[in-house]
Amino acid sequence: MQFFKVKTVEETFALIEDIVQSIKVVEEIPLDQSLHRILAEDIIATESVPSFPRSTVDGYAVKAKETFGSSETMPGFLNVVGSVKMGEEATTPLSHGEAIYIPTGGMMPPNSDSVIMIEHCEDLSGLLNTYKQVAPGENVIQIGEDVKEGDVLITKGTKLRPQELGAIAAIGKTQVAVFKQLTIGYLSSGDEIVPYETEQIQIGQVRDINALTITSLVQEWGAKAIYAGIVSDDYTEYQQRAEELFKEVDCLVLSGGSSVGAKDYTTQVIESLGEPGVYIHGISIKPGKPTILAMAGDKPVIGLPGHPASAMIIFSLFGGEIIKKLSGEISGNRLDRVQVRLTKNIHSSMGRTDYIRVKLIEQEGEWWAEPIIGKSGLISTLVQSDAVVEIKSEFEGARQGDFVPAILLR
Amino acid sequence: MQFFKVKTVEETFALIEDIVQSIKVVEEIPLDQSLHRILAEDIIATESVPSFPRSTVDGYAVKAKETFGSSETMPGFLNVVGSVKMGEEATTPLSHGEAIYIPTGGMMPPNSDSVIMIEHCEDLSGLLNTYKQVAPGENVIQIGEDVKEGDVLITKGTKLRPQELGAIAAIGKTQVAVFKQLTIGYLSSGDEIVPYETEQIQIGQVRDINALTITSLVQEWGAKAIYAGIVSDDYTEYQQRAEELFKEVDCLVLSGGSSVGAKDYTTQVIESLGEPGVYIHGISIKPGKPTILAMAGDKPVIGLPGHPASAMIIFSLFGGEIIKKLSGEISGNRLDRVQVRLTKNIHSSMGRTDYIRVKLIEQEGEWWAEPIIGKSGLISTLVQSDAVVEIKSEFEGARQGDFVPAILLR
Repeated sequence: MQFFKVKTVEETFALIEDIVQSIKVVEEIPLDQSLHRILAEDIIATESVPSFPRSTVDGYAVKAKETFGSSETMPGFLNVVGSVKMGEEATTPLSHGEAIYIPTGGMMPPNSDSVIMIEHCEDLSGLLNTYKQVAPGENVIQIGEDVKEGDVLITKGTKLRPQELGAIAAIGKTQVAVFKQLTIGYLSSGDEIVPYETEQIQIGQVRDINALTITSLVQEWGAKAIYAGIVSDDYTEYQQRAEELFKEVDCLVLSGGSSVGAKDYTTQVIESLGEPGVYIHGISIKPGKPTILAMAGDKPVIGLPGHPASAMIIFSLFGGEIIKKLSGEISGNRLDRVQVRLTKNIHSSMGRTDYIRVKLIEQEGEWWAEPIIGKSGLISTLVQSDAVVEIKSEFEGARQGDFVPAILLR
Repeated sequence: MQFFKVKTVEETFALIEDIVQSIKVVEEIPLDQSLHRILAEDIIATESVPSFPRSTVDGYAVKAKETFGSSETMPGFLNVVGSVKMGEEATTPLSHGEAIYIPTGGMMPPNSDSVIMIEHCEDLSGLLNTYKQVAPGENVIQIGEDVKEGDVLITKGTKLRPQELGAIAAIGKTQVAVFKQLTIGYLSSGDEIVPYETEQIQIGQVRDINALTITSLVQEWGAKAIYAGIVSDDYTEYQQRAEELFKEVDCLVLSGGSSVGAKDYTTQVIESLGEPGVYIHGISIKPGKPTILAMAGDKPVIGLPGHPASAMIIFSLFGGEIIKKLSGEISGNRLDRVQVRLTKNIHSSMGRTDYIRVKLIEQEGEWWAEPIIGKSGLISTLVQSDAVVEIKSEFEGARQGDFVPAILLR
């Protein structure tokens, strides 16, 4: 037992950053199945986008200098000598005094350098009256202006969003190398815990709420959850079931029951899984102090606090960070905490980081956080919550009207 | 052709609120498959949680008044007469002068009203020394304190988050009524558009990027996407393919090509699908002005602007709102715009709402938005973006250091 491994929230995040390493297994998958997967290669543009100069408007391809001086009162004149077809190469070159009709997205004809919008000219039986001058390059996207051949388009470690898929499609790549999808195992323990499907529970029993909250969070983070059921407070059974599950997964999550005996077992079970073992035994946080963080080989093991609501908040904070690190994701700039204002004073203890469940209320364009009353173990308080606000350990609380960081729960 | 139906962004959102109705089809599904689905019933608690009074700590169940006056220097004394077992009914009642050991989550014995934590007492061979007084109810969760039988726990229209699943599991409900998952159809058109899988494109052609960006957004919103491929700029084919797809889906999305002819076709095709037809033909927005919004029967139809990046921003804004409304979701307090500060001046036009792509940069706990340079049609600018900031139509721009609302792209 290592009672002295109590860490602050900041130390816990720093430790996760330090000890959890990205998985190494990479797979090639079709682009259209890669949404939210983590890229395991740099995407280098193998061609330029666009691959030909395109018009960005409907109008007439011209030589810009031949429109100079054109105005509503003193139009210029050009001969319309053809039109560009969508999807086809524009082969007819533009000569002195000529214009060629071009639709948006059409290819610029040879020798043209700009496009005058249809709104700014008038085609009178083949004689184009130009009412505005255009600058060279105006209304044109040049070759490679979107993506230049050879450029690094997206870097390894990026979580693929819709726009990344679009950009990869633009250069004609249909397979991507991504890190393997993570598998996270969850095992409940406790003599009082019964499957949540139990229709009629006996007095003294409670349903296994974590089975749904923890596995749902895993699902939201794009990983696969294996729920291995419930073990009683029996060390041998607990150890065996945990060890079996551990072998199948990239990260193991245990809910160690809430009694002292059950908590002891969880620590022993975690230590039994391998070196280096327990790093953190208790976090100075509310709710969720009795949290365990360990590594067995290169796999993180998390021992969650007993109350389902505390377990969910702890898993959201630290489980989310562990799984992100493990997944290979190198985050860009993620605005994961937003500033909101408190509707009332909040008391907190120095030396402990508090996460207060709040409802968000919009007032005149500003977001206010209304703390939700209720004990920290109650799942219903989380149902009422839009976010948790964070009161860091160096503060004794926060006052009505103060700006505080909030983590959205959605 | 209805060129006069140009609306502001605010009018567009108001119209969506007004004309798009929630689907009516409801299905019963297992709770563990209901994450992010939209609840189609009120969840009424059929039992109380907890169903028995529980201790929230490890300690001794006592009558509070028998600890009154206890302190470190003047401890009280009680006889330990047993212990509560997890998962079992506590049947032994507490008599005068007695205490019963109770683990966290254990059932409170009859006649006990509070729990003294193990940290605040000492069991000396059956004689409990109490070093602190407790108040009646202290360290106890009462019957129904989390969820009270008969209460509305979650209301119809709620998007089910992990905590909602947990709360529903807590009352022993294993099936939920949810609205049918939406099916959204997407059809590309344009003579220049080729499948994104095309290895070698010809000059003048471009790959169908929307096929991935639009369907990925649909997937992120929890709906099912049907991508029906590409049609050429031929009215008859376009109309037939659109009509076929329209029958299969709850909402149809068309990308109308970018040339004038193709745009005309899109409007005609949309009008052909049924009454009431086109509501909006153009939005005073940048990017994405040439957007069409229509209703054919009770199904929304969206005509997206030609450039893939504009199409994605338009679909994120209005498509997202349409699909949310259609899905039956009644949003709670969603903080969907966060305040960030501008790193430089932005110019905008009065009477038009601008969405500027930005990178987010954190500096001393504050988030700053750095505008990304590049034409509005470029997909690479979206890859570089963490968010878009909104400059409303009543402003001519915003200054360096100003707070502006940002919509996160993640």
